[in-house]
Amino acid sequence: MMKDVTFQPIGIIHTPYKTQAGTPIQPYAGKGITGTVEIYPEFRAGLMNLQRWEYIWLLYVFHRSDLFKLRVIPYRDTKEWGVFATRVPSRPNGIGLSAVKLTDVDEGAGRLEIADIDILDESPLLDIKPYVTQFDLYPDADGGWREVAKPNKTIADDRFSDHSSS
Amino acid sequence: MMKDVTFQPIGIIHTPYKTQAGTPIQPYAGKGITGTVEIYPEFRAGLMNLQRWEYIWLLYVFHRSDLFKLRVIPYRDTKEWGVFATRVPSRPNGIGLSAVKLTDVDEGAGRLEIADIDILDESPLLDIKPYVTQFDLYPDADGGWREVAKPNKTIADDRFSDHSSS
Repeated sequence: MMKDVTFQPIGIIHTPYKTQAGTPIQPYAGKGITGTVEIYPEFRAGLMNLQRWEYIWLLYVFHRSDLFKLRVIPYRDTKEWGVFATRVPSRPNGIGLSAVKLTDVDEGAGRLEIADIDILDESPLLDIKPYVTQFDLYPDADGGWREVAKPNKTIADDRFSDHSSS
Repeated sequence: MMKDVTFQPIGIIHTPYKTQAGTPIQPYAGKGITGTVEIYPEFRAGLMNLQRWEYIWLLYVFHRSDLFKLRVIPYRDTKEWGVFATRVPSRPNGIGLSAVKLTDVDEGAGRLEIADIDILDESPLLDIKPYVTQFDLYPDADGGWREVAKPNKTIADDRFSDHSSS
Protein backbone atom coordinates (compact mmCIF):
# COMPACT_ATOMS: atom_id res chain seq x y z
CA MET A 1 0.00 0.00 0.00
CA MET A 2 1.19 3.49 -0.79
CA LYS A 3 1.11 6.24 1.73
CA ASP A 4 -1.74 8.70 2.01
CA VAL A 5 -1.44 12.03 0.26
CA THR A 6 -2.72 15.34 1.62
CA PHE A 7 -3.81 18.33 -0.42
CA GLN A 8 -4.53 21.90 0.60
CA PRO A 9 -7.39 23.55 -1.29
CA ILE A 10 -6.27 26.48 -3.46
CA GLY A 11 -9.71 28.09 -3.47
CA ILE A 12 -13.44 27.56 -3.35
CA ILE A 13 -16.13 27.29 -6.03
CA HIS A 14 -19.33 29.32 -5.71
CA THR A 15 -22.37 28.09 -7.63
CA PRO A 16 -26.17 28.30 -7.41
CA TYR A 17 -26.40 24.60 -6.46
CA LYS A 18 -26.86 24.30 -2.71
CA THR A 19 -27.86 20.63 -2.61
CA GLN A 20 -27.01 17.61 -4.67
CA ALA A 21 -30.63 16.99 -5.58
CA GLY A 22 -31.41 19.29 -8.51
CA THR A 23 -27.78 19.76 -9.59
CA PRO A 24 -27.01 18.84 -13.19
CA ILE A 25 -25.11 15.59 -13.47
CA GLN A 26 -22.47 17.03 -15.77
CA PRO A 27 -21.70 20.46 -17.23
CA TYR A 28 -23.48 19.85 -20.53
CA ALA A 29 -26.71 19.74 -18.53
CA GLY A 30 -25.76 22.96 -16.70
CA LYS A 31 -25.57 24.95 -19.93
CA GLY A 32 -25.79 28.68 -19.23
CA ILE A 33 -25.52 28.35 -15.45
CA THR A 34 -22.75 30.62 -14.13
CA GLY A 35 -20.60 30.60 -11.03
CA THR A 36 -17.37 31.99 -9.67
CA VAL A 37 -14.12 30.52 -8.45
CA GLU A 38 -12.30 32.25 -5.61
CA ILE A 39 -8.54 31.59 -5.52
CA TYR A 40 -6.76 32.18 -2.23
CA PRO A 41 -4.20 35.03 -2.26
CA GLU A 42 -1.06 32.89 -2.05
CA PHE A 43 -1.97 31.01 -5.25
CA ARG A 44 -3.12 33.89 -7.46
CA ALA A 45 0.21 34.31 -9.25
CA GLY A 46 -0.51 30.91 -10.81
CA LEU A 47 -3.41 32.41 -12.81
CA MET A 48 -1.19 34.31 -15.27
CA ASN A 49 -2.33 33.64 -18.88
CA LEU A 50 -5.24 31.47 -17.78
CA GLN A 51 -7.58 33.78 -19.71
CA ARG A 52 -6.00 32.51 -22.94
CA TRP A 53 -7.96 29.30 -22.55
CA GLU A 54 -11.63 29.00 -23.38
CA TYR A 55 -12.34 25.92 -21.26
CA ILE A 56 -10.64 24.75 -18.09
CA TRP A 57 -10.73 21.61 -15.98
CA LEU A 58 -11.62 22.10 -12.35
CA LEU A 59 -10.49 19.38 -9.94
CA TYR A 60 -12.36 19.71 -6.67
CA VAL A 61 -13.52 17.83 -3.61
CA PHE A 62 -16.93 16.13 -3.53
CA HIS A 63 -17.35 17.63 -0.07
CA ARG A 64 -20.89 16.36 0.40
CA SER A 65 -20.02 12.71 -0.28
CA ASP A 66 -18.03 11.41 2.69
CA LEU A 67 -18.86 7.74 2.26
CA PHE A 68 -18.05 5.70 -0.76
CA LYS A 69 -19.66 2.71 -2.42
CA LEU A 70 -17.81 0.37 -4.78
CA ARG A 71 -21.01 -0.63 -6.60
CA VAL A 72 -23.54 2.02 -7.55
CA ILE A 73 -26.60 2.48 -9.71
CA PRO A 74 -25.68 5.45 -11.89
CA TYR A 75 -28.27 7.91 -13.16
CA ARG A 76 -27.93 6.43 -16.63
CA ASP A 77 -28.94 2.90 -15.70
CA THR A 78 -31.10 0.79 -13.43
CA LYS A 79 -28.40 -1.83 -12.77
CA GLU A 80 -25.26 -1.85 -10.66
CA TRP A 81 -21.91 -0.64 -11.98
CA GLY A 82 -18.48 -0.43 -10.42
CA VAL A 83 -17.97 3.09 -9.13
CA PHE A 84 -14.87 3.59 -11.33
CA ALA A 85 -16.98 2.93 -14.43
CA THR A 86 -19.20 5.89 -13.49
CA ARG A 87 -18.83 9.56 -12.60
CA VAL A 88 -20.87 9.45 -9.37
CA PRO A 89 -19.47 11.43 -6.40
CA SER A 90 -19.47 8.62 -3.80
CA ARG A 91 -15.93 7.44 -4.71
CA PRO A 92 -13.03 6.19 -2.56
CA ASN A 93 -11.21 9.46 -3.30
CA GLY A 94 -13.93 12.00 -3.90
CA ILE A 95 -12.28 14.14 -6.54
CA GLY A 96 -14.61 15.85 -8.99
CA LEU A 97 -13.55 16.64 -12.56
CA SER A 98 -15.50 19.11 -14.66
CA ALA A 99 -14.69 21.03 -17.82
CA VAL A 100 -16.25 24.49 -17.57
CA LYS A 101 -16.30 27.52 -19.82
CA LEU A 102 -14.00 30.29 -18.58
CA THR A 103 -15.62 33.66 -19.22
CA ASP A 104 -13.46 36.04 -17.14
CA VAL A 105 -10.27 36.06 -15.07
CA ASP A 106 -9.33 38.70 -12.50
CA GLU A 107 -5.85 37.61 -11.47
CA GLY A 108 -5.40 40.32 -8.83
CA ALA A 109 -8.70 39.57 -7.11
CA GLY A 110 -8.27 35.83 -7.57
CA ARG A 111 -11.66 35.56 -9.20
CA LEU A 112 -12.75 33.47 -12.19
CA GLU A 113 -16.13 33.64 -13.86
CA ILE A 114 -17.25 30.27 -15.17
CA ALA A 115 -20.25 28.96 -17.07
CA ASP A 116 -21.91 25.65 -17.91
CA ILE A 117 -21.33 24.17 -14.49
CA ASP A 118 -22.53 21.14 -12.53
CA ILE A 119 -20.63 21.74 -9.29
CA LEU A 120 -22.05 22.04 -5.79
CA ASP A 121 -21.68 25.38 -3.99
CA GLU A 122 -18.64 25.69 -1.69
CA SER A 123 -16.73 22.81 -3.28
CA PRO A 124 -13.06 23.05 -2.26
CA LEU A 125 -10.88 23.56 -5.33
CA LEU A 126 -7.74 21.43 -5.68
CA ASP A 127 -6.42 22.31 -9.14
CA ILE A 128 -7.11 24.13 -12.39
CA LYS A 129 -5.77 22.87 -15.69
CA PRO A 130 -6.38 24.22 -19.19
CA TYR A 131 -8.59 22.13 -21.46
CA VAL A 132 -6.16 21.36 -24.28
CA THR A 133 -7.80 19.85 -27.34
CA GLN A 134 -4.53 18.19 -28.33
CA PHE A 135 -4.52 16.28 -25.01
CA ASP A 136 -8.15 15.96 -24.00
CA LEU A 137 -10.10 15.32 -27.18
CA TYR A 138 -11.01 11.73 -27.97
CA PRO A 139 -13.97 12.22 -30.33
CA ASP A 140 -14.17 8.55 -31.23
CA ALA A 141 -14.05 7.20 -27.68
CA ASP A 142 -16.60 4.45 -27.45
CA GLY A 143 -19.28 4.97 -24.86
CA GLY A 144 -20.11 2.54 -22.09
CA TRP A 145 -23.65 3.80 -21.79
CA ARG A 146 -24.55 3.13 -25.40
CA GLU A 147 -26.46 -0.04 -24.74
CA VAL A 148 -27.89 0.95 -21.42
CA ALA A 149 -31.56 1.16 -20.62
CA LYS A 150 -33.00 4.53 -19.82
CA PRO A 151 -33.80 6.53 -17.54
CA ASN A 152 -30.87 8.71 -18.70
CA LYS A 153 -31.42 11.34 -16.01
CA THR A 154 -29.54 14.63 -16.25
CA ILE A 155 -30.53 16.22 -12.94
CA ALA A 156 -29.34 14.64 -9.70
CA ASP A 157 -31.43 13.35 -6.86
CA ASP A 158 -29.90 12.74 -3.44
CA ARG A 159 -28.85 9.11 -3.87
CA PHE A 160 -25.13 9.88 -3.47
CA SER A 161 -25.47 12.46 -0.70
CA ASP A 162 -24.66 11.87 2.95
CA HIS A 163 -26.93 14.76 3.77
CA SER A 164 -30.16 13.51 2.33
CA SER A 165 -33.15 14.26 4.49
CA SER A 166 -34.59 10.80 3.96
CA MET B 1 -9.00 28.77 4.26
CA MET B 2 -10.53 25.35 3.88
CA LYS B 3 -9.20 22.35 5.66
CA ASP B 4 -6.73 19.94 4.09
CA VAL B 5 -8.04 16.80 2.46
CA THR B 6 -6.32 13.43 2.58
CA PHE B 7 -6.60 10.69 -0.03
CA GLN B 8 -5.54 7.05 0.07
CA PRO B 9 -4.19 5.70 -3.22
CA ILE B 10 -6.39 2.97 -4.73
CA GLY B 11 -3.54 1.47 -6.76
CA ILE B 12 -0.32 2.11 -8.62
CA ILE B 13 0.51 2.73 -12.28
CA HIS B 14 3.30 0.77 -13.94
CA THR B 15 4.88 2.26 -17.07
CA PRO B 16 8.18 2.15 -18.95
CA TYR B 17 8.99 5.73 -17.90
CA LYS B 18 11.43 5.68 -15.00
CA THR B 19 12.41 9.34 -15.09
CA GLN B 20 10.67 12.54 -16.04
CA ALA B 21 13.25 13.33 -18.69
CA GLY B 22 12.26 11.37 -21.79
CA THR B 23 8.61 10.90 -20.78
CA PRO B 24 6.03 12.15 -23.29
CA ILE B 25 4.40 15.35 -22.17
CA GLN B 26 0.90 14.10 -22.83
CA PRO B 27 -0.63 10.80 -23.99
CA TYR B 28 -0.90 11.81 -27.63
CA ALA B 29 2.90 11.79 -27.69
CA GLY B 30 3.01 8.39 -25.99
CA LYS B 31 1.03 6.70 -28.77
CA GLY B 32 1.47 2.94 -28.67
CA ILE B 33 3.31 2.88 -25.32
CA THR B 34 1.60 0.44 -22.95
CA GLY B 35 1.47 0.07 -19.20
CA THR B 36 -0.57 -1.55 -16.46
CA VAL B 37 -2.59 -0.31 -13.54
CA GLU B 38 -2.66 -2.37 -10.37
CA ILE B 39 -5.74 -1.84 -8.20
CA TYR B 40 -5.48 -2.81 -4.54
CA PRO B 41 -7.73 -5.72 -3.49
CA GLU B 42 -10.20 -3.71 -1.41
CA PHE B 43 -11.10 -1.49 -4.37
CA ARG B 44 -11.42 -4.09 -7.13
CA ALA B 45 -15.19 -4.42 -6.88
CA GLY B 46 -15.32 -0.87 -8.22
CA LEU B 47 -14.01 -2.06 -11.60
CA MET B 48 -17.25 -3.77 -12.66
CA ASN B 49 -18.22 -2.71 -16.22
CA LEU B 50 -15.11 -0.58 -16.65
CA GLN B 51 -14.23 -2.60 -19.77
CA ARG B 52 -17.29 -1.08 -21.48
CA TRP B 53 -15.32 2.16 -21.89
CA GLU B 54 -12.68 2.64 -24.52
CA TYR B 55 -10.86 5.52 -22.82
CA ILE B 56 -10.54 6.31 -19.14
CA TRP B 57 -9.24 9.21 -17.10
CA LEU B 58 -6.55 8.39 -14.60
CA LEU B 59 -6.12 10.81 -11.70
CA TYR B 60 -2.78 10.20 -10.01
CA VAL B 61 -0.11 11.80 -7.89
CA PHE B 62 2.86 13.57 -9.47
CA HIS B 63 5.04 11.74 -6.97
CA ARG B 64 8.34 13.06 -8.35
CA SER B 65 7.32 16.73 -8.05
CA ASP B 66 7.27 17.67 -4.37
CA LEU B 67 7.85 21.38 -4.81
CA PHE B 68 5.60 23.72 -6.71
CA LYS B 69 6.16 26.89 -8.66
CA LEU B 70 3.40 29.39 -9.42
CA ARG B 71 5.15 30.68 -12.56
CA VAL B 72 6.67 28.21 -14.97
CA ILE B 73 8.07 28.07 -18.48
CA PRO B 74 6.03 25.30 -20.11
CA TYR B 75 7.44 23.06 -22.80
CA ARG B 76 5.33 24.88 -25.39
CA ASP B 77 6.79 28.31 -24.79
CA THR B 78 9.90 30.24 -23.86
CA LYS B 79 8.07 32.72 -21.59
CA GLU B 80 6.56 32.42 -18.11
CA TRP B 81 3.00 31.24 -17.54
CA GLY B 82 0.94 30.81 -14.41
CA VAL B 83 1.10 27.16 -13.40
CA PHE B 84 -2.72 26.79 -13.62
CA ALA B 85 -2.59 27.81 -17.28
CA THR B 86 -0.29 24.84 -17.98
CA ARG B 87 -0.24 21.10 -17.42
CA VAL B 88 3.21 20.93 -15.81
CA PRO B 89 3.57 18.62 -12.76
CA SER B 90 5.07 21.15 -10.31
CA ARG B 91 1.65 22.30 -9.04
CA PRO B 92 0.40 23.25 -5.55
CA ASN B 93 -1.63 20.02 -5.52
CA GLY B 94 0.27 17.64 -7.75
CA ILE B 95 -2.62 15.73 -9.29
CA GLY B 96 -2.04 14.35 -12.77
CA LEU B 97 -4.88 13.90 -15.25
CA SER B 98 -4.45 11.72 -18.34
CA ALA B 99 -6.89 10.11 -20.72
CA VAL B 100 -5.54 6.69 -21.70
CA LYS B 101 -6.80 3.90 -23.92
CA LEU B 102 -8.14 0.94 -21.94
CA THR B 103 -7.22 -2.30 -23.67
CA ASP B 104 -7.98 -4.93 -21.01
CA VAL B 105 -9.57 -5.26 -17.56
CA ASP B 106 -9.05 -8.18 -15.17
CA GLU B 107 -11.38 -7.30 -12.33
CA GLY B 108 -10.41 -10.29 -10.16
CA ALA B 109 -6.69 -9.61 -10.43
CA GLY B 110 -7.19 -5.85 -10.19
CA ARG B 111 -5.20 -5.33 -13.36
CA LEU B 112 -5.84 -2.91 -16.22
CA GLU B 113 -3.89 -2.81 -19.47
CA ILE B 114 -3.57 0.71 -20.83
CA ALA B 115 -2.03 2.30 -23.89
CA ASP B 116 -0.98 5.73 -25.16
CA ILE B 117 0.41 6.85 -21.84
CA ASP B 118 2.57 9.68 -20.54
CA ILE B 119 2.70 8.71 -16.88
CA LEU B 120 5.78 8.08 -14.74
CA ASP B 121 6.32 4.57 -13.36
CA GLU B 122 5.01 3.95 -9.83
CA SER B 123 2.63 6.91 -9.84
CA PRO B 124 0.08 6.47 -7.04
CA LEU B 125 -3.44 6.21 -8.48
CA LEU B 126 -6.21 8.27 -6.88
CA ASP B 127 -9.20 7.70 -9.13
CA ILE B 128 -10.43 6.24 -12.41
CA LYS B 129 -13.30 7.80 -14.33
CA PRO B 130 -14.71 6.84 -17.70
CA TYR B 131 -14.02 9.20 -20.59
CA VAL B 132 -17.55 10.17 -21.56
CA THR B 133 -17.78 12.02 -24.85
CA GLN B 134 -21.00 13.69 -23.77
CA PHE B 135 -19.18 15.25 -20.78
CA ASP B 136 -15.57 15.58 -21.85
CA LEU B 137 -15.62 16.59 -25.50
CA TYR B 138 -15.15 20.28 -26.28
CA PRO B 139 -13.95 20.12 -29.89
CA ASP B 140 -14.18 23.87 -30.38
CA ALA B 141 -12.30 24.85 -27.21
CA ASP B 142 -9.96 27.63 -28.14
CA GLY B 143 -6.33 26.88 -27.47
CA GLY B 144 -4.06 29.06 -25.34
CA TRP B 145 -0.95 27.90 -27.13
CA ARG B 146 -2.16 28.94 -30.56
CA GLU B 147 -0.09 32.11 -30.73
CA VAL B 148 2.86 30.82 -28.81
CA ALA B 149 6.39 30.65 -30.18
CA LYS B 150 7.92 27.24 -30.64
CA PRO B 151 9.79 25.03 -29.36
CA ASN B 152 6.60 22.92 -28.95
CA LYS B 153 8.43 20.06 -27.29
CA THR B 154 6.61 16.74 -26.78
CA ILE B 155 9.21 14.87 -24.73
CA ALA B 156 10.00 16.07 -21.21
CA ASP B 157 13.33 17.12 -19.84
CA ASP B 158 13.93 17.34 -16.08
CA ARG B 159 12.91 20.93 -15.48
CA PHE B 160 9.96 20.00 -13.25
CA SER B 161 11.64 17.17 -11.38
CA ASP B 162 12.93 17.35 -7.83
CA HIS B 163 15.18 14.46 -8.66
CA SER B 164 17.14 15.95 -11.51
CA SER B 165 20.78 15.09 -11.44
CA SER B 166 21.80 18.64 -12.27
